[in-house]
Amino acid sequence: MDRIVIGIAGGTASGKTTVAQKLFDAFGSDAVMLSHDYYYKPHDELTFEQRSKLNYDHPDSLDTALLIEHVRRLKDGNAIMHPTYDFAEYRRNSEWQRTQSARIIIVEGILIYTDATLCKLCDIKLFVDADADVRFIRRLSRDVNERGRSMQSVIDQYLGTVKPMHEQFVEPSKAKADLIIPQGGHNEIAISMIIDGIRKRLAATAE
Amino acid sequence: MDRIVIGIAGGTASGKTTVAQKLFDAFGSDAVMLSHDYYYKPHDELTFEQRSKLNYDHPDSLDTALLIEHVRRLKDGNAIMHPTYDFAEYRRNSEWQRTQSARIIIVEGILIYTDATLCKLCDIKLFVDADADVRFIRRLSRDVNERGRSMQSVIDQYLGTVKPMHEQFVEPSKAKADLIIPQGGHNEIAISMIIDGIRKRLAATAE
Repeated sequence: MDRIVIGIAGGTASGKTTVAQKLFDAFGSDAVMLSHDYYYKPHDELTFEQRSKLNYDHPDSLDTALLIEHVRRLKDGNAIMHPTYDFAEYRRNSEWQRTQSARIIIVEGILIYTDATLCKLCDIKLFVDADADVRFIRRLSRDVNERGRSMQSVIDQYLGTVKPMHEQFVEPSKAKADLIIPQGGHNEIAISMIIDGIRKRLAATAE
Repeated sequence: MDRIVIGIAGGTASGKTTVAQKLFDAFGSDAVMLSHDYYYKPHDELTFEQRSKLNYDHPDSLDTALLIEHVRRLKDGNAIMHPTYDFAEYRRNSEWQRTQSARIIIVEGILIYTDATLCKLCDIKLFVDADADVRFIRRLSRDVNERGRSMQSVIDQYLGTVKPMHEQFVEPSKAKADLIIPQGGHNEIAISMIIDGIRKRLAATAE
């Protein structure tokens, strides 16, 4: 039985998690989802203060080799144990999580198309797009309200690493996408067409 | 029986005609296609020399009201007679063409999303994207080889009106699209997913 790997990339707060969640919900038990975020390197050797100053928007901040290994294992039908990450503490949680394989493997993250091997593993590459100012406003609201960050720390991180890394890595990686979804997670027409397209492929590989 | 209007926009030589043709071919007799290009204003009062100097990349160069009327008539199930255009002579042909209605009405053109009424008439709005340099190279080849233009006239027109009008009208209208197709007409994954998505809607409206 063939499995389909669907990549979902996009800038910070572009709505890619919403799109990923809608795809995930549409396919129920036929889908599993992995976030590149789970794979932030742990840096247990550093203090909180030091960890909070790292550049989390550079591809090197992530253990992409481990994500690739996990996607391959899921594609082969095996279960995996994947790391999880604590954004308030900037560190990897001690508990890892089990994920079974499924027919649809969703991989989401801002930097997933910067890795050529990961790109090749994705059968369908989606990119969720939104204007930079709208993305900043969403990120500010989320980080202040849900992640306990101060407004100034969000601004400093955005101008210091998020924006330059977006321009260096995320924006150019859009060229790797098969389909670009504008207006982020609220684009119902795009999302429903993509779900129908995937469903068709699922039916075709089941034959 | 519901009819679906599909808009296909994109910059000059982005591959939108290729995408439109592939959709048209996929749906056979279920589809008809209208180009905004058919609706260039005639300007029979001007000489060839004068007509060749007009700005053909501004929305005002097109009789969009007539296109809208035709799309509405097709959507209501009626046949239309539409104008056709001679690019070598910069003028409307004397013969108009009959187009029957069909379940899928494809409307393509660089400027279709600059008109709010036409936007609302499109049930699915696609935008075909390609890098500006690649688009220029394709346009140059096409206009020199197929439309009998000189290289210099293509360059002059591109810098004089095509590029500024693209930046003023076409690029901002991308924000109106439901789905953006990068890598133009050769993006098989995007095109096949979109065809499957439309097919699903067609089946849903037939029930």
